[in-house]
Amino acid sequence: MIKRLAILGVGLIGGSFALALRRAGVVETVVGYGRSAANLATAQRMGILDAVATTAALAVQGADLVCIAAPVGAVPGLLAEAAPALRDDAILVDVGSTKQGVIAAARVTLETHTHTRIAQFVPCHPIAGAEDSGAAAARAELFHGRAVIITPLPENAPATLARVTALWQACGARVTEMEAVHHDHIFAAVSHLPHLAAFALVAELASRPEAETFFLHAGSGFRDFTRIAASHPEMWRDIALANRDALLTELDAYQAQLATLRTLLATNDRERLSELFARASHARRSLTLTLDKS
Amino acid sequence: MIKRLAILGVGLIGGSFALALRRAGVVETVVGYGRSAANLATAQRMGILDAVATTAALAVQGADLVCIAAPVGAVPGLLAEAAPALRDDAILVDVGSTKQGVIAAARVTLETHTHTRIAQFVPCHPIAGAEDSGAAAARAELFHGRAVIITPLPENAPATLARVTALWQACGARVTEMEAVHHDHIFAAVSHLPHLAAFALVAELASRPEAETFFLHAGSGFRDFTRIAASHPEMWRDIALANRDALLTELDAYQAQLATLRTLLATNDRERLSELFARASHARRSLTLTLDKS
Repeated sequence: MIKRLAILGVGLIGGSFALALRRAGVVETVVGYGRSAANLATAQRMGILDAVATTAALAVQGADLVCIAAPVGAVPGLLAEAAPALRDDAILVDVGSTKQGVIAAARVTLETHTHTRIAQFVPCHPIAGAEDSGAAAARAELFHGRAVIITPLPENAPATLARVTALWQACGARVTEMEAVHHDHIFAAVSHLPHLAAFALVAELASRPEAETFFLHAGSGFRDFTRIAASHPEMWRDIALANRDALLTELDAYQAQLATLRTLLATNDRERLSELFARASHARRSLTLTLDKS
Repeated sequence: MIKRLAILGVGLIGGSFALALRRAGVVETVVGYGRSAANLATAQRMGILDAVATTAALAVQGADLVCIAAPVGAVPGLLAEAAPALRDDAILVDVGSTKQGVIAAARVTLETHTHTRIAQFVPCHPIAGAEDSGAAAARAELFHGRAVIITPLPENAPATLARVTALWQACGARVTEMEAVHHDHIFAAVSHLPHLAAFALVAELASRPEAETFFLHAGSGFRDFTRIAASHPEMWRDIALANRDALLTELDAYQAQLATLRTLLATNDRERLSELFARASHARRSLTLTLDKS
């Protein structure tokens, strides 16, 4: 049982985490801290929060579980603000889409203070993004059937990992573990690059004088392809910068593939164009089968 | 009333067109021709076709309406095969995603024969694609509420255009008119480029040794972004080549935008990265509002 849960950044993920733990009956009191007073008021109205704190330090005071659910760029600052008030037996989790940067920041902050230890921090990544953001989008079922990846630290005690795993499972999630570096590499390819590619396509079209006419004729294919371009700009800027090296590698591979495709098109290479499209179509259809099962 | 409808290429679009006209009660007999005997047998079993013809010429013999619904690369060949047997008062429509190439091919073929005229051909583009293809995917409701764009020729008689418009409306579609060159320009941007971009991303990932691991961690964002990469490879090869010039222009604009994004990322330009993402997110959210209304 969690006596007091502190949520730093009460958005879609942080809000849903609180709601899911409440519904599972494993949390008593939830205190929230965030930048937007209006958002925190919404969270209180929705029953996500019992109380709103005016600083990160006040939010974590006395908390046995702290969840940092702000955009990854804001995490180091929040950690620094919260650390002096953190209980020495509190468990700290984050929910960021990139892990190495957050781990490095947590290591510095928690080891700087004499009463806190990096072992308290369990890096987590729930795979449950959505275009909607803010507390208003939060719901108790968000993690139901979704994957949560934990990238454990060598310092984490088995009991701490087991406790965090059980909490995510109480939210209905399937928990797996992975090395942080491997995590960041994989998600650069299957999440961060697609977001960048969708942002780029929509930004390019939107910058044209005839943008309205283009969007007017967008069909379901365009709609699906660009859905993630509606995502939260600051959140994705932070993710892109936090996972910059892996993302640049992916972006280069993607641009090289586009350049190849351009050559095939410009030289009328029907055969190799078919091959490339067929390889993609086959892989994507296999993926549909896999996803349908999950 | 259509006495005899000939469908050349009985796939998702051609099959759905026949089913929709049947349900509307405006067609008596439907004859089909296509490359795959198995697909034609499916179409007959599904009640799409009353009869299967062994050549395009036999299919159009005596038909008052002919619908060419093959991949755009196969249209010139089908036109040439069918033209000698075409009635001089038959109306001919196509359903291709690009219009200028098909119009040029039809002009040559129909004016070569003394008994046919380009005025008989009405170029159409129903915006109702899907990843599924073949007769098995056809359904009478496919065009319900969808847009159909007609790119009329100067030679088309108003009565012919009115007849074709009425047929699509009988299928439940909203019909609009547009210049062919304008059509090809717009769809290069909002349809053909996104398909290319999705094919490129999936093909690139699929070519890696650790592809399975990547796909295993694909979330809903990746799924949406790449859904169109499951599309029919030959159909899209044909579309890409048929609309090559407009598509190369779009591809270049997209690559330039990706290169800009790469620079912002590599130089840690938080502010301009936020601006670019925010422009895309805002435009995509406006689009959601528009699409929700349509």
